Amino acid sequence: MMSNPAKKYKAFPTIALHDRQWPSRSINKAPIWMSTDLRDGNQALIEPMDAKKKLRFFEMLVKIGLKEIEVAFPSASETDFAFVRKLIEEQRIPDDVTIEVLTQSREDLIRRTIESVRGAKRAIVHLYNPIAPAFRRIVFGKSREEVKQIATDGTRLIKQLTDAMPETEWVFEYSPETFSMAELDFSKEVCDAVASIWQPTVERKMIINLPTTVECATPNVYADQIEWMDRNLAQRDAIILSVHPHNDRGTAVAAAELAVMAGADRVEGCLFGNGERTGNVDLVTLALNLYTQGVDPGLDFSDIDSVRQCVEECNQLPVHPRHPYVGDLVFTAFSGSHQDAIKKGFAQQQKDAIWEVPYLPIDPADLGRNYDAVIRVNSQSGKGGMAFLLEQEYGISMPRRMQIEFSRVVQTAADDSGKEMTAQQIHQIFSDSYLAPATPISYQAHHANPVLHHRTSPSDPAQVSLHVDLLHHGQPQAIQGTGHGIVEAQINVCQSLGYQVRIIDKQEQQVTQQGHSQYISIIEARVNDGSSQHGAGIADDAATASMRAIISVINRHANSDTALEMIAA
Amino acid sequence: MMSNPAKKYKAFPTIALHDRQWPSRSINKAPIWMSTDLRDGNQALIEPMDAKKKLRFFEMLVKIGLKEIEVAFPSASETDFAFVRKLIEEQRIPDDVTIEVLTQSREDLIRRTIESVRGAKRAIVHLYNPIAPAFRRIVFGKSREEVKQIATDGTRLIKQLTDAMPETEWVFEYSPETFSMAELDFSKEVCDAVASIWQPTVERKMIINLPTTVECATPNVYADQIEWMDRNLAQRDAIILSVHPHNDRGTAVAAAELAVMAGADRVEGCLFGNGERTGNVDLVTLALNLYTQGVDPGLDFSDIDSVRQCVEECNQLPVHPRHPYVGDLVFTAFSGSHQDAIKKGFAQQQKDAIWEVPYLPIDPADLGRNYDAVIRVNSQSGKGGMAFLLEQEYGISMPRRMQIEFSRVVQTAADDSGKEMTAQQIHQIFSDSYLAPATPISYQAHHANPVLHHRTSPSDPAQVSLHVDLLHHGQPQAIQGTGHGIVEAQINVCQSLGYQVRIIDKQEQQVTQQGHSQYISIIEARVNDGSSQHGAGIADDAATASMRAIISVINRHANSDTALEMIAA
Repeated sequence: MMSNPAKKYKAFPTIALHDRQWPSRSINKAPIWMSTDLRDGNQALIEPMDAKKKLRFFEMLVKIGLKEIEVAFPSASETDFAFVRKLIEEQRIPDDVTIEVLTQSREDLIRRTIESVRGAKRAIVHLYNPIAPAFRRIVFGKSREEVKQIATDGTRLIKQLTDAMPETEWVFEYSPETFSMAELDFSKEVCDAVASIWQPTVERKMIINLPTTVECATPNVYADQIEWMDRNLAQRDAIILSVHPHNDRGTAVAAAELAVMAGADRVEGCLFGNGERTGNVDLVTLALNLYTQGVDPGLDFSDIDSVRQCVEECNQLPVHPRHPYVGDLVFTAFSGSHQDAIKKGFAQQQKDAIWEVPYLPIDPADLGRNYDAVIRVNSQSGKGGMAFLLEQEYGISMPRRMQIEFSRVVQTAADDSGKEMTAQQIHQIFSDSYLAPATPISYQAHHANPVLHHRTSPSDPAQVSLHVDLLHHGQPQAIQGTGHGIVEAQINVCQSLGYQVRIIDKQEQQVTQQGHSQYISIIEARVNDGSSQHGAGIADDAATASMRAIISVINRHANSDTALEMIAA
Repeated sequence: MMSNPAKKYKAFPTIALHDRQWPSRSINKAPIWMSTDLRDGNQALIEPMDAKKKLRFFEMLVKIGLKEIEVAFPSASETDFAFVRKLIEEQRIPDDVTIEVLTQSREDLIRRTIESVRGAKRAIVHLYNPIAPAFRRIVFGKSREEVKQIATDGTRLIKQLTDAMPETEWVFEYSPETFSMAELDFSKEVCDAVASIWQPTVERKMIINLPTTVECATPNVYADQIEWMDRNLAQRDAIILSVHPHNDRGTAVAAAELAVMAGADRVEGCLFGNGERTGNVDLVTLALNLYTQGVDPGLDFSDIDSVRQCVEECNQLPVHPRHPYVGDLVFTAFSGSHQDAIKKGFAQQQKDAIWEVPYLPIDPADLGRNYDAVIRVNSQSGKGGMAFLLEQEYGISMPRRMQIEFSRVVQTAADDSGKEMTAQQIHQIFSDSYLAPATPISYQAHHANPVLHHRTSPSDPAQVSLHVDLLHHGQPQAIQGTGHGIVEAQINVCQSLGYQVRIIDKQEQQVTQQGHSQYISIIEARVNDGSSQHGAGIADDAATASMRAIISVINRHANSDTALEMIAA
């Protein structure tokens, strides 16, 4: 049994704010968003991003529309320092985007941090120090006065250093750490002291950021704390009030929303909720929650799958299948009654009318996604679904989104036969759907190897040259493709035939059947900007399997049976 | 760019409840928990559970301490109907546990549902019908009065049928569907009408359950709705007020917590937030949030990893590494300053004193977990971490928890050498740590095959008999083990040597090096109820690899260097 919590844990005290206003308010404009993916998110990864990944992530953030991006903790690592220099020296920061850097309050670290942003057009210097009682007592053994002194000393030095560098427009941000666990009067005292040194004005505001470094109470308590600060900060009109929620209790999104209702102007977080431990608040969910209430979030998630792909690859962490808006299963209806209601909803939905489809809080098309009606073929038979059978009997492991796609194909066949499917029948449908010769692209003989030659460049081994033989609309074609890596070369082969292929996901397995090992490649891609589809290829070598899988996607795209999909009227 | 939401979406209206009380309240006792894992959770799975998995899940729920369990939607499927019968006929329901079954309001479905629970000692019959305006108009084309009639007709029939079966203690539950999107006065009107037919009393209460079938507003709006119902329902003292939040906006946990503050007595949800689309509210997070506030949740998660393993295996869905309390990464500190603060926190923490370790909202030991300090070996070198190198160069893919464990071993070696590690050196450390001969169990010759014979029973091919040759404390031993499947037989071999092995996770890969294919088995297990550890084994066949991996865990358990782990004082 668990130990008795009454002896070991105590309730977080509520805030006596009986005239609180936030519960009667709504959010009717987007806060300023600040992405800390490259700092707070990055430092919580098993494998932190290298400069290449950081740059890819930065460019994606800019594309989405982030205007404030915390790019590094420059004094903590050479990698981080060099990344900030790279952004500035290679002029990679758009004029309307401000980079932010974090520093602790120590002279050497502050000097190094300011040095890292030298030459930036505009920069936010973000100073933090722990001020909560547990930190004062346990970690530092310091008094309130001494802790306040750390904050004001740091502020004074930053002011002095930045005053001497007028070519940059400097914005100052201060975070009293674990604000959520600190005494409100002391948080105000420290923030006011810092502001009195920085001397912000209405025209040149500073940022006061109030983190729940560790979430420790229900989100209404945080909203009370923010409303108290909103009312009591000395120079409120010269301050941008910012929040930085973590998700230890699973309520970071709510904490941010209630805090904005309570007066916060700005939210710091990460895409899909990456970050220390349970993560920072998820900026995507916050933005799309606003979107569904008719409020423009100012961020563009119209191709949310691409954003997810970038984040998953850079963070090496998955997005959960039930993650709001982006998870594989969140636009999927399994039950007949839900499917029926959604179908009726699509049928009555007029273009430009208010969105009102049951069970779908947002139009999946607004995110570049589809609605998936999944009919569970074998669930009633108790014998397991088609994905399970394919994996058990044939070693073919389908990604989740492919299972959803394939289940519709199997359902059609099941409806025709009226009988339960065996593993062998399901494998046959899989082969017919994904592996069989098809149009427009086929091979001289089905088992022929379409990849004839495959050569890497002696000077750059990553540069690949391919010669591929195939039939296009029955006409023999010998095509050459080059690229950085085999897949890029293969995509270029397809481009020569007039197919733009954008790969969303790719996996490769080795399957051994009766002692004969083969590669099976499964690819999810968009062809000519159509909706995403899957393809599969099997071959003795991985390169050919991959080429066949890409061709399988193209053929399936060309032969899409839209009757299988439920389309909005 | 995204379409303009202002034209397509509208804000959910707020509730005019200006004297609301909930924002000033705290939660000081646990609500009644109801698990709908086997119903709402199950119906949202790509692969719904078969009877065996459902039974395993049911027994785990009972063990945790759930007293109300929705076990099926019996009229919707044979599998579900048969499962309810199985529970009752095999007398698998403890006296203090009540099963619940869901039905729509149609005569044939109600009759079949009541039939499914015949003979149960106590049962909750859960009737629902959609009443929200979008459903009335779009899906059913019915008036308010007609929709109310559906609810009252169903209630009347259930009352009539259950009155005739007095051997069962019947509890009635009614859910107006998508309560959160319905007009409050109409929800009250329907609930009152239903209650006036059922005629609950203070001694024999009925359940009114108010679902956010689709989450459509910030959680404070739901709290207002619940407080309004709490104040206005006609026979409130004869009613158990229940909530059923979904997570479309990522705020289900907050919605449930604020709803309990607003007067709800009972919460329906699923473990780790499984369920339709974005899931039902996560009961584990809710319970442990209470626990950290000194409130006994009445549920036992003192071995949370086992609970997770059961849920992941039954649902075939992962728990995210950042999931509160249970995720792989939530008790992991990567940064030096966090590690330092946590170390100081552990050092000052007195037994039986209030828990106060920075960055850890709960003592991981209360959940049967450890605190993991991860020192990032190669992050500054920009050359990638050890897991990445092992996978790229040697095809060895370590599970995330093993990466955390292994990174400490590598760090120790890196500290000794003071240099950056190559892939080869890391592979050597991996081999030394997991694969090399060790004590107490070793082999006659290291490359000898410890599994000599391996026989399945002709009558039951799943029944496996093993003969294993090895050295135990240097003494040759020939041990026989039998079991259902190869792993169970191997565990029995270890049991003969005095080691209780409980497997938490197991994965197998085929690795090909220079044309020679081998199996690598990686196992996470507890030995003799110690903390969980990993082991690895490589061999030409999968059975031997698995045996070696289990032995590797035992040896590592016996030789654990506790100095490597940070232990609370």
